Amino acid sequence: MPTDLIEDAKVSLEATLAQLKGPSTVDVLKVQQAIIRAVHQFMFERGLVQVMPLMLSPITDPLNHGVVDAAITYAGSRWSLTKSMIFHKQLALLNPELEALYIVSPNVRLEFADRAFTGRHMFEFTQVDFEFRDKDGPFVRAFMEDLVRFVFSAVTRDLPEIVDRYRPDGLPEIGQLEIHRTEELEAQYGADYEHLKSQEAVKPFWLLNHRREFYDKEDPAKPGTYLNYDLIWPEGFGEGLSGAERENEYHQILKRMDETGSDKEAFKYYLQVAKEYGLPYSAGAGFGVERMARFICRIKDINEVTPFSRRPGTPALF
Amino acid sequence: MPTDLIEDAKVSLEATLAQLKGPSTVDVLKVQQAIIRAVHQFMFERGLVQVMPLMLSPITDPLNHGVVDAAITYAGSRWSLTKSMIFHKQLALLNPELEALYIVSPNVRLEFADRAFTGRHMFEFTQVDFEFRDKDGPFVRAFMEDLVRFVFSAVTRDLPEIVDRYRPDGLPEIGQLEIHRTEELEAQYGADYEHLKSQEAVKPFWLLNHRREFYDKEDPAKPGTYLNYDLIWPEGFGEGLSGAERENEYHQILKRMDETGSDKEAFKYYLQVAKEYGLPYSAGAGFGVERMARFICRIKDINEVTPFSRRPGTPALF
Repeated sequence: MPTDLIEDAKVSLEATLAQLKGPSTVDVLKVQQAIIRAVHQFMFERGLVQVMPLMLSPITDPLNHGVVDAAITYAGSRWSLTKSMIFHKQLALLNPELEALYIVSPNVRLEFADRAFTGRHMFEFTQVDFEFRDKDGPFVRAFMEDLVRFVFSAVTRDLPEIVDRYRPDGLPEIGQLEIHRTEELEAQYGADYEHLKSQEAVKPFWLLNHRREFYDKEDPAKPGTYLNYDLIWPEGFGEGLSGAERENEYHQILKRMDETGSDKEAFKYYLQVAKEYGLPYSAGAGFGVERMARFICRIKDINEVTPFSRRPGTPALF
Repeated sequence: MPTDLIEDAKVSLEATLAQLKGPSTVDVLKVQQAIIRAVHQFMFERGLVQVMPLMLSPITDPLNHGVVDAAITYAGSRWSLTKSMIFHKQLALLNPELEALYIVSPNVRLEFADRAFTGRHMFEFTQVDFEFRDKDGPFVRAFMEDLVRFVFSAVTRDLPEIVDRYRPDGLPEIGQLEIHRTEELEAQYGADYEHLKSQEAVKPFWLLNHRREFYDKEDPAKPGTYLNYDLIWPEGFGEGLSGAERENEYHQILKRMDETGSDKEAFKYYLQVAKEYGLPYSAGAGFGVERMARFICRIKDINEVTPFSRRPGTPALF
């Protein structure tokens, strides 16, 4: 028994191989594969153009919660590992021939160890990101409802035995989803409103108005509230998609960067584009493939979705 | 004019935006999208299961040429950025329910600046990697010929105007491709054989027997030669796929690591799996999506395939 490995790596080879060989692992991989294939089909039918993922960039998503910094040095520059493709989506829409785009991209977010057992966090995962020029939140929400309906129907059609095994009651039918606002739910449920409402819900729902990253647009009609929206999976599975209309005007971006304490020096070329060339008005969202598969297969711990453990704050052998 | 940017970043914002807004960029993105969609369809029809990409791992492809080291520290461990998914493919096949798998993954290879203008290198790109348990080189080569035929036919069907624009003579028909060996071509063309033969060819061809990474299987019948194979694009576009039967036996892996000067300490858990649990016999390959799009669109410089420049040894603003 390789107990020495437990000593020096805090993870054993046996546990690693047990996860690799897990019988349900392949079921979940097939569900993820079906999600991804359906997403590509849906995006193509709706006319979105795919942009290839980038893992390194001088700028990346600052996120609204702290993670360990992940950056390397190359060609005399500092490159961050991509936490999301948000800024590249905005910038790519500067091409006049692109009206809508999507990206299937690994995201690296080196979460602190306190997120090791939330059931919802891995320190790298796959995100589907999409963005539309000149569209608004209601358009994006209707688009996402159509996408989820399309994906659930594809998964049910392609993998009937797997859906039957993990969800004998079938996947929820997706019509126009309920819309809630954070301030409304907070008044009703208290500070843990998102989690409590998710536990109670039997269908996904929208949750609007989160105070977070500078690039989510502030509502000009109601300053201090925000034109963003999360899709929350029911049955306690929690947040599954995060999106917003975007700040695109130079002075408003500056104001929001001040409020969120963002590093303007790091974003100087992005700010220069906003000031001198103009960023497009856009709205979009991103959703995690593993979290959707977790919901479909009703898996408690998202780290069981992958053959290779990526638990926050925890080493891995491979 | 932001000339100060040229000073401090050696790339101008104007050049960056010109590339972003390039009219042909969207054509090439659509070709890449069609390739990826066709690949997912083909893999599904052939029964391969998709594994999600990983960007960080304690072990990654050592490659057979030097690149700048790319690694970060997290959770008390050192994680390399994934140069290819080769070892994860081998390990994932330990799951008895997986007979064949594929991965669509960004690969980060921080090439030195001497590869800036080869036309074929970006320091991050998207690779389609696949691997079969208990199959050999001839099987993989026939599979890849079928895949290329399927993809070319999908691209021609979905994007007739784009194919017409860049390749009015149409894409080459893919039957059983010619097979050459490195020693044969070297005798005929000299040291620059791969490039010269690619320039002369009008159809892709196979090139067998390369001395390179330790995981490519040595031919037991002819020691000193190797059961690997590259697909070479014609018209001078060069290498487009690289594959092999794999070394899977512990003592043979050790011997090959010695020959190639590999770091056994870094691979200690991989070696322990090979010694104590056994690695599966497998064969597979990986091909670059951008290189395939470059061939289809006859683009001289691969850096024009992307809206965001990733030229070796060169900074970028985004």
